[in-house]
Amino acid sequence: MKQTISVLVENQAGVLNRITGLFSRRAFNIESLAVGVTDDPTVSRITIIVDSGNSVVEQVEKQLNKLIEVIKVRTLEETAMIGRELILLKVNANHKTRQDIMTICEIMGAKVDDISPSSMTLELSDTPDRIETFEALMRPFSILEEVRTGVIALQKGGGKI
Amino acid sequence: MKQTISVLVENQAGVLNRITGLFSRRAFNIESLAVGVTDDPTVSRITIIVDSGNSVVEQVEKQLNKLIEVIKVRTLEETAMIGRELILLKVNANHKTRQDIMTICEIMGAKVDDISPSSMTLELSDTPDRIETFEALMRPFSILEEVRTGVIALQKGGGKI
Repeated sequence: MKQTISVLVENQAGVLNRITGLFSRRAFNIESLAVGVTDDPTVSRITIIVDSGNSVVEQVEKQLNKLIEVIKVRTLEETAMIGRELILLKVNANHKTRQDIMTICEIMGAKVDDISPSSMTLELSDTPDRIETFEALMRPFSILEEVRTGVIALQKGGGKI
Repeated sequence: MKQTISVLVENQAGVLNRITGLFSRRAFNIESLAVGVTDDPTVSRITIIVDSGNSVVEQVEKQLNKLIEVIKVRTLEETAMIGRELILLKVNANHKTRQDIMTICEIMGAKVDDISPSSMTLELSDTPDRIETFEALMRPFSILEEVRTGVIALQKGGGKI
């Protein structure tokens, strides 16, 4: 089962290494991880997606709470969160295929960030499911390269994590 | 100077820890890091932003290339890349402020993902500069919480990294 762990940490050299170390020592594969600054420049928020059971996640949560740089840890319930991901995707494109690609972009709400005689670079932020649909729709045109951010998430409603 | 390092790696437990270890042993603070899957499920792409000189980045690049799970490393030039970031931002909102918030969202191209009687959760993907403008515009309404993915990037034009 995929689980989303949101961790507020002090923005210091080494903290990310201590956190990824917790996972690697237990041979848990991190499916995605995103670290970004917050409104407070001394604090970063790390969003980690792991594919593990509840007991494993509980254990990780306890270990994370022991780290001195960790301010707060919260596991988010799939049904009670807003989860979004960003993809940049460079696809083969020429005068024959450009309109087809544009049509899919319009339907999915993707933006065109760059164009060359032989390619288009596309941008889409959406749920991980819809990102995968978009990828699948682009695959027939031949994907040159792509990069995804990993999922970030906030709790639904007015509450704070 | 902010530098963007793009690393293709085999998707294995521990690889992220070895990479963050390289940085933390040299006390380089990673400003943002995003790990996401690629079109090939056995390969992940890690985008790292560091604030360091060229010599430091060259050194890190060399060390990364020595890791067995690392397939490719590339430092992207600011002027030759498409760099984008995603933010989810929950802001205080009530009947008096909702229209003002919506107007800013329309101008900036942000989406409203969730609403409650006292809040709105907003989503924007854009350049880091514009993400910061958006944050600054939302600050007066009082930001409840936010999460950012960190920057991901692809080379401009038809080439592959």
